[in-house]
Parts: sequence; C-alpha cells; structure tokens
Amino acid sequence: MSDGILILSEKELRKFVQLDTKVIEKVELGFAQLAAGNATVPPIMMLPVPEKNGEVDIKSAFIKGLPSMAIKIASGFFQNPDIGLPSQSGQMLVVSAETGFLQGVLLDNGYLTQVRTAAAGAIAAKYLAPDGVDTVGVFGCGVQARYQMEALSLVKPFKRIVMYSIDTEARKQDFVKDMTERLGVEVVSAKSGAELVAQCGIVVTTTPSRKGYFEPEWVHPGLHITSMGSDAEDKQELKGGVFGKADIIACDLKAQSFRLGELRGAKEEGFVTELTPVLEIGQIIGTAKSARTSADQVTVCDLTGVGVQDTMIALMAYEIALREKAGIVVPR
Amino acid sequence: MSDGILILSEKELRKFVQLDTKVIEKVELGFAQLAAGNATVPPIMMLPVPEKNGEVDIKSAFIKGLPSMAIKIASGFFQNPDIGLPSQSGQMLVVSAETGFLQGVLLDNGYLTQVRTAAAGAIAAKYLAPDGVDTVGVFGCGVQARYQMEALSLVKPFKRIVMYSIDTEARKQDFVKDMTERLGVEVVSAKSGAELVAQCGIVVTTTPSRKGYFEPEWVHPGLHITSMGSDAEDKQELKGGVFGKADIIACDLKAQSFRLGELRGAKEEGFVTELTPVLEIGQIIGTAKSARTSADQVTVCDLTGVGVQDTMIALMAYEIALREKAGIVVPR
Repeated sequence: MSDGILILSEKELRKFVQLDTKVIEKVELGFAQLAAGNATVPPIMMLPVPEKNGEVDIKSAFIKGLPSMAIKIASGFFQNPDIGLPSQSGQMLVVSAETGFLQGVLLDNGYLTQVRTAAAGAIAAKYLAPDGVDTVGVFGCGVQARYQMEALSLVKPFKRIVMYSIDTEARKQDFVKDMTERLGVEVVSAKSGAELVAQCGIVVTTTPSRKGYFEPEWVHPGLHITSMGSDAEDKQELKGGVFGKADIIACDLKAQSFRLGELRGAKEEGFVTELTPVLEIGQIIGTAKSARTSADQVTVCDLTGVGVQDTMIALMAYEIALREKAGIVVPR
Repeated sequence: MSDGILILSEKELRKFVQLDTKVIEKVELGFAQLAAGNATVPPIMMLPVPEKNGEVDIKSAFIKGLPSMAIKIASGFFQNPDIGLPSQSGQMLVVSAETGFLQGVLLDNGYLTQVRTAAAGAIAAKYLAPDGVDTVGVFGCGVQARYQMEALSLVKPFKRIVMYSIDTEARKQDFVKDMTERLGVEVVSAKSGAELVAQCGIVVTTTPSRKGYFEPEWVHPGLHITSMGSDAEDKQELKGGVFGKADIIACDLKAQSFRLGELRGAKEEGFVTELTPVLEIGQIIGTAKSARTSADQVTVCDLTGVGVQDTMIALMAYEIALREKAGIVVPR
C-alpha cells in the first residue's frame, strides 16, 4: 500500500490494455454500477484557457466496492498543431479508495480514454442496435472513428463500412486503407451523409462538430445511431429532429447528456424535455439482452463519457501492471 | 516542453520550498490575481468515500499570464491511523497553460498545502491584524498550528505564544517545546479558550472542530482572528456571534467561505447574510497597507484554501526544481 507510486508509460499501457471483450466487460460493469446507484460521479471540473483555445477537464468516479478510483486529467489545446504538437493529451491517477493514497500515475497520453470511449460505443450497440447488419457507417475518419468501428466489430460483426468525412482526401484514404487491413472488411468513402445513412443499419458519429449535421430525413426504420462526438455545451452532431424520430433514446449519463451532449441541443430545439423517457445504458445492462423489441425501431444513444469508464479501465491497467511488475516505482 | 515529466519527491520539495517571505509573496500575488478577476477557480471536486470515513478533494486554478497551472489531489481518510498511516495525503500536478501537457508530478504528501495554508494566514494577519502585539494565541497544537505561528512571526513578530488544545498532554508539551526552539519565544499552554483570548491581540484557530467553540464573549477590542480550520460543510470553529462583534470581516474566497467555511455557520446562525460586507483578502492587497483603520477594531478572516494558492506554490517549486535539475524525468 505505502510501498510507492507506480509510474506507467503509454507504451506499457498499450501492451497491457487493448480494445477487446475484456475491456468492454469492465466498462459495462462500470455503467451497471452507475445505474445501480453504486457510483459517485462528481460534475466534470473544467479549466478553460481561452488565450490558447484550450481546456483542461478533470473527470473522476468512485465505484463502491472497488479498491481504487481514477482521476483523469484530459487536455484539449487546439493551437498545439501550429507548433507541431497534438491537441489532445491526458493522463490518469489511480488513488486508493481504502486510504486515499496515490497508487499510480498512468501516462497514457489519452490512449485509455480512446479505448474506454470505444468500449462504450460497443456497449451502446450491443444493447440497442439490430442484429444481422452487414453495412455500418461512421461519420469522421479520425482515431476514434477507427476505434469505434473496431469496437463495433466485436459485438455486432459486419461486412462493410461506409465512412463520410469533411477531412482531407489523404486522411480519408488512410482510414479506408487502415480499416480494410485491420478489420478485413470492405471500406468505402461516401459522397454525402444521406448516401451513407441510406446504406447502413448502424451509424456511429465521431466528429467534433459544433452544428447538427445529421438530418432527421436520413433516419429509416431499424436504424441505430451512436453519437459520441458531443461532450461540450457548444458541440452537436444530430439535429434535434433525429430524436423526434427515435423509438428509444439512450445515453450514458442523463444529467451530463442534457448539459454537454446531444440531449442539450435536442432539448433546445424542442424535441425532448427532461421528462422524455431516456434510458441510461447501465439501466439496460442486467435487465435485458437488448432494449430493442423489434427490428424496425429507431434507436439513438448519446455518449458524453463518464468517470466510471475511466475508473474501470485505469484499475484494469494498474492491476495488470502490478502483476507484470511493470513501470517505475517512485517512493512516496 | 515535450521533453518529459518531472517527478519530484517530498524530500526535494522540502529542500526547495520553505515557509518564508518569498512563498508569502507568491501566494499574495495569487490572491491579488484572484481578486482582480484574473483567475479561474472551478468549484472543488469532492469524492467522498463514506465506507472509510474518507474523502478525496481536487482543487485547481488557472491564473492568467502564468505558464502553468496546478491541480491538487488531497485526501483525508480518517481510519488510516488505525492501520498506522497518516490521515492526510496529497500531491499536485503541474500542467502547461500553453499546451495542456503534464509537466510535473509533485509528490509532496501534503507538504506544499501546509506551507501555502500558513502563507495565507500570514497574509491575513499582515493586512488585518494590529501592530505591536506581543502575545499571540493559537487553538490547536498540530502541524498547521505550528506553521501558522511560524508564518505569523514573519509578518507580525511577537514575544509569546499561548496555545489551547483538547489534544493529549504529550502532544501539547511537544508543541511547547518545538515552538520554543523554532521561534525562540515563550510558549505556554492555556487552561481554557477564554484565558487564551484574554491575553492575545492576534488569535489563529486551526482545529477540525465540527461545532463552534469560539465564544463571542471572548472577543475584545483590537482582536484579530484568523480561522483556518473549517473547509467543509460540517466544520465550524467560530460561533456566529463572533461575526456579530467584528468590525471587518474578510475571507479568502467569498463563495467558498459561505459554502464550506465559517461564513456558512455564521449565516445559518443569522449573524451574516450574502449582503454583509465581506472583503476578500486579494481586494486589500495592492489597495491598502492594512484594511484596519484603528487599533480598536475587531477583525476576523476566514480561510478555506483556494486553488490559486496551490497554483502559485506548485509553480514556484516546479521552477526551482527545473533550475536545480532535480527529480526524475520520465518520458511523455
């Protein structure tokens, strides 16, 4: 306990934790505990640095019965690329829930966040999306778009990906090549969002858009949408009308989605209220194999990212590292 | 910038940062920036762990113009002594305000918090307490009681300390011995709070009391009280009536003092309202040598602890360590 503090590098963390069914199970357990009232999730602490178009966000969660909790510090500084640095950075601290002592510093540079975010996408699809979908779609072609497709393939295997993005042709081609190689499926780039959605039974939106672009007219019977781009008051991917067409609305954490996620925009546009039935995904886990009761239902799940995901993946990484005797131990 | 992350031990931090006029000046600058509207101080993030009578608190502040900000994780787990561990622990992270990247991990085990808290006490006395006081008093005989007396000696030199505590005789004797040696002044233990206050022109309260014990009847003309024990909704040292007798009421951060500090209790007991004139100490700095305009005024200052203090001391420590090439550098 008071032996010292374990410092783990991104390289080590990538070795110990990959996006797989084990991670998905862990994150699922976190959501189930959240829905059962066994997690304390304080509001996100936000430190804006407007001078640099930057923000530092701190997320955390204590889950009853677990020996430790994670505190995540995640930064997004959008002038960094001008000086050749990535916009995003981050790390997690593991703190003992027995003594309050710091146990580990996970210098993951945001890797664990990418994985736990993708895991939440898998869980949303697992409990809401229809079965037997051959063609899936993704908006965006960045790192998280790729992780989301990989995560989806673990719970709802598919044969073909359609991607739409406003990014450069080179980045889009890189996505096509990378995904074809990694998942062994056909990958194509669509000319429009409408064209993409028309072909897909499951669509994941992964963009940092500040304006709803997903049109309600695109929605067709049986469609499942997971929207994970919006995590701030000024972001939105789905136009409010999309929620007007949904038979089942779900999210990760209602209070947060209404503040920072898609439900904020949908509420402003008058398509949902705080009284609209909205399922938290943790409520579905353990009660039903799927919230969907027919193949024709339209389902939408909004993910904003919750501290329980960080606590689950950080603990998993820390425990593996301890077992493997990895990392640097510094004295307390 | 992206060279790596500096890990500093408590031992190194103790070598580089001591309670002295330099630290006091730094913390003073932090308060001045806070009052000038140049600091962003999000509400404290609190993670209670009731099963262990514990809590993890996260404080932070971004101060405009500084190259970095600090994020402090402080734990209080009050069953720790049962297993031979200290109740309090903590550390600070230094994060770049230019890029959001983690720059340093200060494994200070709460040392920097002790010092910056004492520095705030010095600042309160400097701007509110009367001059020429020979005998000062302190409630409590723990680590912070000692730091507060040391800090006070730097701004308002005195000849004698009177201490009152409900702690064991051994701990009280240790305080007397320790303070006599460190400050070279006479130190005595009082039999009651009334006896203590009657002898003193300046009194500092440093206890974790959950019930007001400082009686309004004890207040005499010219008295200055700094109260730094209360930092949670269930703590209180000064009975509300003490504020009824004050000519000048000050605090570190009004919003926080009304929520977690002495002003919460005083408001509940009907002695102050949100409209009562309350000075934040940063407002005095730079505008007057002292808020006190006569030797007879009664002044009270409530300190709850603000993220700007952490950011100022953490940056100071980090910059000295960089210059001295101390610590372990781990790759990003």
